[in-house]
Amino acid sequence: MTPLQNDLLLRTMRGEATERSPVWLMRQAGRILPQYRAIRQRLSGFKELVETPHLAAEVTIQPVDELGVDAAIIFSDILVVCDAMGLPYDMEEKRGPFFRRTLRSAADVNRLRIADGNDNLQHTITAVSLVRQTLAGRVPLIGFAAAPWTLLSYMVEGSGSKTFSEAKKMLYCAPDVAHRALEKITQSTINYLKAQIHAGADVVQIFDSWAGVLSPEQYSTFSARYIHQICQAIDEVPVTVFAKGAFFALSEIAEMPCQAIGLDWHTSPKFARQAVGKYKVLQGNLDPCQLYASPEAVAQATTQMLRDFGSQRYIANLGHGVYPDTPLESVKAFVRAVQQTTPKAKLATS
Amino acid sequence: MTPLQNDLLLRTMRGEATERSPVWLMRQAGRILPQYRAIRQRLSGFKELVETPHLAAEVTIQPVDELGVDAAIIFSDILVVCDAMGLPYDMEEKRGPFFRRTLRSAADVNRLRIADGNDNLQHTITAVSLVRQTLAGRVPLIGFAAAPWTLLSYMVEGSGSKTFSEAKKMLYCAPDVAHRALEKITQSTINYLKAQIHAGADVVQIFDSWAGVLSPEQYSTFSARYIHQICQAIDEVPVTVFAKGAFFALSEIAEMPCQAIGLDWHTSPKFARQAVGKYKVLQGNLDPCQLYASPEAVAQATTQMLRDFGSQRYIANLGHGVYPDTPLESVKAFVRAVQQTTPKAKLATS
Repeated sequence: MTPLQNDLLLRTMRGEATERSPVWLMRQAGRILPQYRAIRQRLSGFKELVETPHLAAEVTIQPVDELGVDAAIIFSDILVVCDAMGLPYDMEEKRGPFFRRTLRSAADVNRLRIADGNDNLQHTITAVSLVRQTLAGRVPLIGFAAAPWTLLSYMVEGSGSKTFSEAKKMLYCAPDVAHRALEKITQSTINYLKAQIHAGADVVQIFDSWAGVLSPEQYSTFSARYIHQICQAIDEVPVTVFAKGAFFALSEIAEMPCQAIGLDWHTSPKFARQAVGKYKVLQGNLDPCQLYASPEAVAQATTQMLRDFGSQRYIANLGHGVYPDTPLESVKAFVRAVQQTTPKAKLATS
Repeated sequence: MTPLQNDLLLRTMRGEATERSPVWLMRQAGRILPQYRAIRQRLSGFKELVETPHLAAEVTIQPVDELGVDAAIIFSDILVVCDAMGLPYDMEEKRGPFFRRTLRSAADVNRLRIADGNDNLQHTITAVSLVRQTLAGRVPLIGFAAAPWTLLSYMVEGSGSKTFSEAKKMLYCAPDVAHRALEKITQSTINYLKAQIHAGADVVQIFDSWAGVLSPEQYSTFSARYIHQICQAIDEVPVTVFAKGAFFALSEIAEMPCQAIGLDWHTSPKFARQAVGKYKVLQGNLDPCQLYASPEAVAQATTQMLRDFGSQRYIANLGHGVYPDTPLESVKAFVRAVQQTTPKAKLATS
């Protein structure tokens, strides 16, 4: 293995003192980059890109070249695990994911397979290997998967939803069926993350995109519990848990054997630190809409964010994936502002 | 004026000690009731119902008859104020509101009228008078309006949105234009609420449905500030502020001259009380999906909620509008559970 030339993210996640905060952006491999759009328009759709390892690898590396971020994150889709478990979906332009069959009954859950990588997950695992080889140690590579609740919510609902009321109905009306499904998804996710790590992921992140539709009690019972199991099973590399909208669960997430906690833009640094304590690394959380502003305004807001979080045990990022119509110059201003703010400069201005 | 026979809501909002907590449901006048569906299917659409005062009055009273709730809330739509300001919208089945023209520039804002009731708002104001006469003091009548930020977000975006990124872009890129629009909407909303109060509304509620897409700083600058102005202007009746998703702003809302604060289902009673202090009345916050469960399970969850909030300075409600496909028996179980739980019973079980 080539040693890492930029290991800032890994040192930060291990809790070591660092010269500055590392920076990357959720969805940095995507439509914000002209290089990505050029590849994407040659293909039939988003899933073709996910399922073509050499192209997925290429778009994974584009933001390292173009933006100079401190980490790459493998280009894939959280829902590939549903496909691998026997519940296929299509990704429709503008409409988002759509499942031909949904998961509604105990019989549906019984038919779910446990994914093990000998399935469509192989595409992403191959892409991880290719990225790792091509990067040759320039920056670490982040692998990822969805939290089991987030996958369940799509599988039951069959598409995106404002309320995910069908999925939540299962939690209230058939909790045993939901738990059976969540157990299978959890095992599949552990297998998938371990395969990514084996193929070369240096760090993994768990995305609980629909954490924010649950009540605190439901979140604890149907989501946090399974994320905890995943964190326990992944002891090879550092783990980040990002539960969007789950401000109420930050203390519970802080009890998990993970190294970092992702934050959305609703959570102030002070609120987050109070909830999680001193030791966990925090990651986030600029409002993605802030990047619509001028590069100067972005730099100012980013510098303020760095000041509020402090430079240690902190990874600069947005509070959600970067929006596709974000101007590239503002994205660059965000990255530059983090990389030019050293702890010393920070102290001088605070 | 006929004196109120059931003034539990008003006594609670005035901070008086009461024999039990009052109960009503957001969207109680709506599709959960067969009586509502019968009227609705005779009409061309949702807006026809909003704009036909005697029918709007009829559906407002239906839940008082059918569910026995402790308050009526006028049947209308938050977006009627946009119409009155010169930005018309259609309500499309399943798709939600759709604006033919949107608000994007300073010139667009200049063209906005200040609503004063001599416009389409007259429909709702007439309906308020009719309800007040027909109720003849059985229960109090709640008037309502949206928070200015929520109306602005629809006017700029032109429809519902997962992110409201166009509306938020205006806040970051053209804050002066946004403030000009918010001032006009605030004045229109004050006029509208005063007209409702003059026509007979006993209480008013301000709905900030899209509070939850903003960062704490943006919320303070572009939403809380204008809600505060509305609360200051309305000194005739008690006011409830419900900012969905704005857990981070509870302390700021507690500083407003309002009597009650609505809570969504993410906010635990303990978190809310700590944030707002002892004096404000709290309202909420059962997860609307809890009502998909059996009447027995609903009664149990409701009793637990009453125990957690305590019986004083508390109005039982859901944490969001009741979903249209909720079984009527579970809605009734919710109302019954509140009305049968007296503080004495509560003390005995806690």
